[in-house]
Amino acid sequence: MAEFTVSFDGFGPVQVPGGSLLTEAAVRAGVQIAQPCGGQGRCGRCAVQILGGADAAGGVRRRSTLRLSAADVAAGYALACQAVVEGDAQVSVPTQETLERALTTDRTAAEVTVPAGYDPQRDQTIRRLYLTLPPPSLDDQRDDWSRLQTAVRQQTGLENLQISLPLLRQLGSVLRAGEWQVTAVIATPQSPISNLPISQSPHLLTLLPGHTEIPLLGLAIDIGTTTVSVWLADLISGEVLAQAAEYNRQIRCGEDVISRVIYASKNNGQAELRHLVLQSINTLIERVGQKVGKDQRSEIRDLEIAQSPISNLQSHIYKATIVGNSIMMHLLLGIPAESIRLSPFVTAVNHPPVFTAAEIGLDMHPAGTVLCLPGVASYVGADITAGVLASGLDDALAVSLFMDIGTNGEIVLGGREWLVTCACSAGPAFEGAGVQDGMRATRGAIEEVWIDGRTAEPTWRVIGNDKPRGLCGSGLISLLAELFLTGVIDKGGHLNQHLATNRIRQGENGPEYVVAWGEESWHGRDIAITHVDIDNLIRAKAAVYAGMAVLADSVGLPLDSVEQVLIGGSFGKYINVEKGIQIGLLPDKPWEQFKFLGNTAVLGAYYALLSQTAQQRISDIAARMTYIELSADNSFYEAFTSALFLPHTEMDRFPSVAQEMEIERLEIRD
Amino acid sequence: MAEFTVSFDGFGPVQVPGGSLLTEAAVRAGVQIAQPCGGQGRCGRCAVQILGGADAAGGVRRRSTLRLSAADVAAGYALACQAVVEGDAQVSVPTQETLERALTTDRTAAEVTVPAGYDPQRDQTIRRLYLTLPPPSLDDQRDDWSRLQTAVRQQTGLENLQISLPLLRQLGSVLRAGEWQVTAVIATPQSPISNLPISQSPHLLTLLPGHTEIPLLGLAIDIGTTTVSVWLADLISGEVLAQAAEYNRQIRCGEDVISRVIYASKNNGQAELRHLVLQSINTLIERVGQKVGKDQRSEIRDLEIAQSPISNLQSHIYKATIVGNSIMMHLLLGIPAESIRLSPFVTAVNHPPVFTAAEIGLDMHPAGTVLCLPGVASYVGADITAGVLASGLDDALAVSLFMDIGTNGEIVLGGREWLVTCACSAGPAFEGAGVQDGMRATRGAIEEVWIDGRTAEPTWRVIGNDKPRGLCGSGLISLLAELFLTGVIDKGGHLNQHLATNRIRQGENGPEYVVAWGEESWHGRDIAITHVDIDNLIRAKAAVYAGMAVLADSVGLPLDSVEQVLIGGSFGKYINVEKGIQIGLLPDKPWEQFKFLGNTAVLGAYYALLSQTAQQRISDIAARMTYIELSADNSFYEAFTSALFLPHTEMDRFPSVAQEMEIERLEIRD
Repeated sequence: MAEFTVSFDGFGPVQVPGGSLLTEAAVRAGVQIAQPCGGQGRCGRCAVQILGGADAAGGVRRRSTLRLSAADVAAGYALACQAVVEGDAQVSVPTQETLERALTTDRTAAEVTVPAGYDPQRDQTIRRLYLTLPPPSLDDQRDDWSRLQTAVRQQTGLENLQISLPLLRQLGSVLRAGEWQVTAVIATPQSPISNLPISQSPHLLTLLPGHTEIPLLGLAIDIGTTTVSVWLADLISGEVLAQAAEYNRQIRCGEDVISRVIYASKNNGQAELRHLVLQSINTLIERVGQKVGKDQRSEIRDLEIAQSPISNLQSHIYKATIVGNSIMMHLLLGIPAESIRLSPFVTAVNHPPVFTAAEIGLDMHPAGTVLCLPGVASYVGADITAGVLASGLDDALAVSLFMDIGTNGEIVLGGREWLVTCACSAGPAFEGAGVQDGMRATRGAIEEVWIDGRTAEPTWRVIGNDKPRGLCGSGLISLLAELFLTGVIDKGGHLNQHLATNRIRQGENGPEYVVAWGEESWHGRDIAITHVDIDNLIRAKAAVYAGMAVLADSVGLPLDSVEQVLIGGSFGKYINVEKGIQIGLLPDKPWEQFKFLGNTAVLGAYYALLSQTAQQRISDIAARMTYIELSADNSFYEAFTSALFLPHTEMDRFPSVAQEMEIERLEIRD
Repeated sequence: MAEFTVSFDGFGPVQVPGGSLLTEAAVRAGVQIAQPCGGQGRCGRCAVQILGGADAAGGVRRRSTLRLSAADVAAGYALACQAVVEGDAQVSVPTQETLERALTTDRTAAEVTVPAGYDPQRDQTIRRLYLTLPPPSLDDQRDDWSRLQTAVRQQTGLENLQISLPLLRQLGSVLRAGEWQVTAVIATPQSPISNLPISQSPHLLTLLPGHTEIPLLGLAIDIGTTTVSVWLADLISGEVLAQAAEYNRQIRCGEDVISRVIYASKNNGQAELRHLVLQSINTLIERVGQKVGKDQRSEIRDLEIAQSPISNLQSHIYKATIVGNSIMMHLLLGIPAESIRLSPFVTAVNHPPVFTAAEIGLDMHPAGTVLCLPGVASYVGADITAGVLASGLDDALAVSLFMDIGTNGEIVLGGREWLVTCACSAGPAFEGAGVQDGMRATRGAIEEVWIDGRTAEPTWRVIGNDKPRGLCGSGLISLLAELFLTGVIDKGGHLNQHLATNRIRQGENGPEYVVAWGEESWHGRDIAITHVDIDNLIRAKAAVYAGMAVLADSVGLPLDSVEQVLIGGSFGKYINVEKGIQIGLLPDKPWEQFKFLGNTAVLGAYYALLSQTAQQRISDIAARMTYIELSADNSFYEAFTSALFLPHTEMDRFPSVAQEMEIERLEIRD
């Protein structure tokens, strides 16, 4: 079969056989193209521009132009998942590149504070020891291994040290090369002074001749359905040395967890998804390693090892903690997740055993300890238990609410005494998916909207101060709130067709409200929210609110008794509380009772990376949490139905919104 | 390069490039040819007959005929390690084939008795469980793994069960395929009722759907320098189902441990030696598996699994215990053993950690537990600690002596209260190596000799009642004793050149005594013992006796106070006690104080396979034994020198021999 050359802007050209899809060429070129719908041409999110291609785009045949406007088609746009390579082609993937950049989180690295009083001797399970052994003699013929064990015991009190066969094979030569002085790295699942139960014996990870100041590094990894985040930490100082994030490469196999479980159950999907998320993680590990290598101010620079190739630095990563929702965890470990999807919604494992990096496939020290932190249930994973730790909820005296709204919405209610949790399948609407002009919170996304109550004309703020390309989650919440307060939609979400504005019109997908006209937008197309979109958003917020209501109900407390609302997840960081309350997503509480905590999942993983006490606390959180299965809960459906209005059927739950509506109505009348 | 066809009798023909050695062709054909000298053409042990080859043997060029008589050369004999293939050749390897057969130990299988009161529930660390789990429901959403852990805990009381990633991946489907009834095999390093310290957590080895009566098998493996023995046992009944043995395939890389350590340190020797011993073990595992498969009376026949391919039976071998001297253990594990050879003679490890079968490379269940039992020092290995257990020495009330005379001689003195041990480098003389006409104890070996005191004419008994081919260890001891008592040699081992017999003559290697004339022998050559041979034998027995003397001395006891002598090792089984005493190899004690125990090493391994108490007892033995390094002991050299006479310089140590000599002298005079 003929081969053709496909060049993606900013990447090297690749050869692909004729008949390949552009998405396949992109994989080969290392270009990431999101396919939220799994490559079925339905979502239109994978649109790319074929350079030099007009209607019959150069080198590429468009199998479907669904979701592309006539103007797009004329400008050479094609859906990558529906574009067949039939000649050499040059492809521009503007959005994707921006996405990548927007995700690097260097600027936030400095924001992480090492937990006060961090003491590696007491808290850290990975230890670097400088050992000096008495050399053997005819009067002391102990074997090398006993000699080393004794030296470790004398220095640390640790009994029953274990060794792997590969290390045992090197033992004699390392001891003799160092003339009985060696540097050992050992993993101690518990420090001798702690009272935690023993889960494993201490074991040797590395042995080097002489006393060498090798770095002791660790990783905190959060596998989000959308975004994978990796932090590299110095296990001695506790400091976060570098952070990096990228989109989860599994995205092209499905935007939400359920699509991925279905994808995994088909053909070789399980292995492919495992491979993809490992690619994401390992790319990020390499990237954080490079950052540390380049950083002139880094203390690691001073170490001999910093001059060595990067792979050498990665070999000094001895520990990783991983969080993610239960499905992400199963897919990472290659464990079938089908039972999670089907009633009675059971995971294969909530708390995976301790594995080595080699078993899992992480590019770090192969014998390094990998702790997959424990989840609670199919839809309340380790990202939530870690998040609860990071938020401090489990230690709160006042009744508190923790929520992490992403592709799923997980909610935890409680405090020091008790914890109840549930998961609401909010759907990906708040992440901009399943919405016609939805997009992620990157350059060109409308993130806030204001509507003039009299003219129904909008103004908006765009990320990067650019021309708008679509609406991200916070923009959608803001838009929905404004549409409601100004009466453009009613409490049921129906567009008021009687308003004197050309913004409301009949679109391809039914009634819609135009937020930006084509001449204002980046791509020249109108940006609108349809009735279907509004319905999706209302169902999503209703699911979340109903979850909170059911939780409160389950412990016999009014939702009103909650004294603080802790919002985790990077999305949460950008929610405008007022708007969230106005649409009935958040409970009606004063501003000061809300705290936005950012990515609590990775923060919790980082705490567990540093401290075995934190790690144990997460296990305790998982054990303490009472999980309420909403699909089996009789009151949920009722609560959900009641919440299918803006802000809610029972307006007394939202007194501040009622007041706001009154003001707005008066203003419009003026 | 031209290829030629080499056929070995009884094996398929193989193609080898011209210029190959016959030993290389033999490896390719799967024919084992011993090369005690490591293939240097020095020992003459690898002689084979080239069929149709006279002086210029057909297809084969003889690089050296050292160690071959002119008659041999004329009969087409060649040293395989010095025979270069230059054409098609047909080769007869008569001795080797006999060796193989002689080693199958079927007939001894029935001799092993299951230890009285063996209770797998209490003693065995491998357990088969039939579990019935409550199926999950919306009211019971525990994860599969917790569900299984709980079921195991409820049935056995075992906490903290561990699982591997591959099993975790299958867990959900196995549980569902069995409709929540499963058969689990777990390894429990300690039974809940025992007081032994925890070395590891219990872990799952296998999980099968339904309640299946799968066999639970284990292996006891003894890696001798010369012979590898494998016993297959039923872990539930305790019964030994099959036994097999073959020569250690490492033999061709050196007959004794030191040659092998040197071989290991050259080129890729370490990996080759590891590979060779694994081949030996895995061949034997296959063989014991086949025996059980074929055995109509075996209970395993009744099991469904017996009808499956043999590999299926091997996959039900869940545990192995391995013994061997320290060098054999290092070579098996691929651990460099160089430090054992050089002062101060230190092993890398005396008590290897617990490994899985896959890590070591044994053909059994890949996650099966492999226990390499503990040794004491470089030259007192697990074969001795296991042997001490099997002999009951560690529990003896009377002062006892345990000796295992093979390529090395290891001696243990003591009882319930204390144990001292040492190793004497006896050399391989007692195994028939390093002696001109020495051979192993197989068909054609002279195993006992009587000499007429008046004529100096010998008579002998040959293994298999065949024509003699050489002298095995017991034959050499017997011959030496007879030569001494009849005055053919003096107490210094010098041949009496003045005797009126043609049996004493000047040979190629100095003075010698002809045991069998060419017309009587199998190969038509004279069989003789040379002065050099006699010297070697005296040095060997002196080393062993000196070891015993030093041990007794070290605890301040006369050797005479020993109340029983326990002799392990298959060689020991054939020693004639009287002759052993006469040459001064064994202490001068009455017959009834000697016990011949056969292969105590594999017996001890079998006890440890069945019972964790026995396993712990071997560890205790290893810990209790005080090792005396003879090379660092001032008194050893003196004791050795004193023992360089027949039977000893101090004749009062051997009163019975003095008496015998007196009788003999009187008889000769008559």
